[in-house]
Amino acid sequence: MSDLLTKAMLVKGTTTSLATKTTEQKNHALQLLSKQLREQKQYIITENSRDIEQGRQNGLHESLIDRLILDEARIDDMADALLQLTELEDPIGNIIEKWTRPNGLQIQKARVPIGVVGMIYEARPNVTIDAASLCLKTGNAVLLRGSSSAIYSNTALVKVIHDALAQSDLPKDAVQLVEDTSRETASEMFKLNQYLDVLIPRGGKKLIDTVVANASVPVLETGAGNCHLFIDQTAQKEMAIEIAINAKTDRPSVCNAIETILVDQQWAEQHGEELIKALHANEVEIHGDSYFTSMDSNVIEATEEDYETEYLDYTVAIKTVQSVTEAINHINKYGTHHSESIITENDTLVVQFMNEVDAAAVYHNASTRFTDGFEFGFGAEIGISTQKLHARGPMGLEALTSTKYLLHGNGQIK
Amino acid sequence: MSDLLTKAMLVKGTTTSLATKTTEQKNHALQLLSKQLREQKQYIITENSRDIEQGRQNGLHESLIDRLILDEARIDDMADALLQLTELEDPIGNIIEKWTRPNGLQIQKARVPIGVVGMIYEARPNVTIDAASLCLKTGNAVLLRGSSSAIYSNTALVKVIHDALAQSDLPKDAVQLVEDTSRETASEMFKLNQYLDVLIPRGGKKLIDTVVANASVPVLETGAGNCHLFIDQTAQKEMAIEIAINAKTDRPSVCNAIETILVDQQWAEQHGEELIKALHANEVEIHGDSYFTSMDSNVIEATEEDYETEYLDYTVAIKTVQSVTEAINHINKYGTHHSESIITENDTLVVQFMNEVDAAAVYHNASTRFTDGFEFGFGAEIGISTQKLHARGPMGLEALTSTKYLLHGNGQIK
Repeated sequence: MSDLLTKAMLVKGTTTSLATKTTEQKNHALQLLSKQLREQKQYIITENSRDIEQGRQNGLHESLIDRLILDEARIDDMADALLQLTELEDPIGNIIEKWTRPNGLQIQKARVPIGVVGMIYEARPNVTIDAASLCLKTGNAVLLRGSSSAIYSNTALVKVIHDALAQSDLPKDAVQLVEDTSRETASEMFKLNQYLDVLIPRGGKKLIDTVVANASVPVLETGAGNCHLFIDQTAQKEMAIEIAINAKTDRPSVCNAIETILVDQQWAEQHGEELIKALHANEVEIHGDSYFTSMDSNVIEATEEDYETEYLDYTVAIKTVQSVTEAINHINKYGTHHSESIITENDTLVVQFMNEVDAAAVYHNASTRFTDGFEFGFGAEIGISTQKLHARGPMGLEALTSTKYLLHGNGQIK
Repeated sequence: MSDLLTKAMLVKGTTTSLATKTTEQKNHALQLLSKQLREQKQYIITENSRDIEQGRQNGLHESLIDRLILDEARIDDMADALLQLTELEDPIGNIIEKWTRPNGLQIQKARVPIGVVGMIYEARPNVTIDAASLCLKTGNAVLLRGSSSAIYSNTALVKVIHDALAQSDLPKDAVQLVEDTSRETASEMFKLNQYLDVLIPRGGKKLIDTVVANASVPVLETGAGNCHLFIDQTAQKEMAIEIAINAKTDRPSVCNAIETILVDQQWAEQHGEELIKALHANEVEIHGDSYFTSMDSNVIEATEEDYETEYLDYTVAIKTVQSVTEAINHINKYGTHHSESIITENDTLVVQFMNEVDAAAVYHNASTRFTDGFEFGFGAEIGISTQKLHARGPMGLEALTSTKYLLHGNGQIK
């Protein structure tokens, strides 16, 4: 039997046991894992160095090498995050709703684990601990499939997880790593409906698109963010400029950074130059429509492609619009349904913008940078969903749960 | 451009408008549709007769012909159901949760439509009205793809829908029928992620399996029901037998009917004969293990295949077990995670059964026949989900909704 199938059966075999573990038992396992990570730091660093050496031999870009590195500080961060996770409320077992039917049948809707989570991810080995711990906290088993470039690190981390689980009340087999990192095996994993309840891809757009296009197992899609800021004519100048700079430059490489600023024509005429100056002062390259190119010769002419692009860099597109409706139409046409913000003092426009913009998070007078599980106060984040089923927006522990109806009767028949 | 793409673009174009319609506007459209159905009854029946004639020419089985028929009574039922739907609470716009972050950012989680629902279904033309009306009530646009055997009926019903929508505040294009019923077009529809937010297959296991295996658009899976009844040693005799007969014979062709009865050895020794007699008296064919075949010569020997089979008929498998754990293991191995029931007076076993059985609905001392949107009190049903993401168990209007975060600030930046 293949490595994939063997591991899939092993994790599947632990779901009944995992689903019935108490919060204390699960938290204890996370504490043990935190301790093991610190104790086995040198082993992890040694194994990690083999990946790094191999990466350098293969000519991996230094930015990717950096993502691979596990040093003492990063391992301590992982160990700390595990302890923080023990402090979060356990959603499993919560009764979400309950009611009694006229025939006396009592119906409860309880929160339960999903079952087996298939995690497919790219270089960062910290995802191994992150994914495993979020799954264990919510009573889920997890089949991990990392990339070949991190195989020594991932194997070491899963060994550490197994050492911790062996001391705990949780089944050791609840976390397994697929060691065969071939494309064929990944494709096989996409179709493993018999063993996997959900697939979560974590990585670049290409990885996510491949999983969505080919998986028959349901996918929790965490997608790209082509986010917009719309500055209405009533927007306060300082607030609008401050939010534009923050949403673009606080961390340009993340999905909740803005890529296009839409500016009401009247506001542009009054404050456009100041906005352009502020963006340039923050080293942002600006691709603008004819209004802005004629205002400032350092503004590059924007093309259709600019409006479709998630730059993930110190670059922004800027465009004048005549109305909130034009802004909404632009956003719904080019956006990726992630995070969109309106800056305005006009409450009527707020209502229209919030109702008509089709996105996971719609902001009024705030930066899009808040679309994040921690900023929302969830204490953990699986990713940010841009799909509409199951979970939308930042996903906390609850996104890793399902529900089950429990019905109590005294002989009811239909 | 193909019929499929043209229609997909048309429905997609209505989503912003639909999402902002009030409950009154949506209910008014449903009332108009109810009225149009009654007024255009003769036209519908005439078009329906063309499908029936064609079906007979093609040698369609009479049971399938019966499912195709739209007569006055059935059209009246559809019209009545539309009026009932107007009385249900509209979930759209509800604020599910709200909280304020330490920085003053106010976060609301609002219920919104999914967007575009792709409905793929088999012969029954009433699904056309059923699906369209549930989607409109929840502010969703819908692309319908029925079967070729009902094409005249479906075309007529969509014409009636368009006549009603034309008089309403809702966009007429919100409901479209794909007229090309080829397999190629269905396969194309499976991959239409650009236009469709979800696919809902309604029909037999083969149809559902095909959609799940091939779709890249997320699927709401409504699956088969290989349901079980476990009779524990402490079960009250009359209650157990009454529930067994009801769950098997009330309507054997539906997914929430039981297919296998697991009987505790001690209970079987005391009351097994009476249970067998009662089942035989209700014309149920019994496939049993050696304990039951040696008890009654009319019991047919059960094979492994029996335990895997959803008979959907007056046939049941019956097997003795030594413990609740053996029953749970059998259910989790052979079941389809639909509906499972335990009959017992032992509360400890109830807890174990409810925790460890992996199913959408788990019953204690009641018939599995209650797994149904109407029996749950939802007032409507899209289907019964046997998957674990988004919705599990009977799906009411809420299953056709998504959520959106609305964030109000006063200049917050990260």
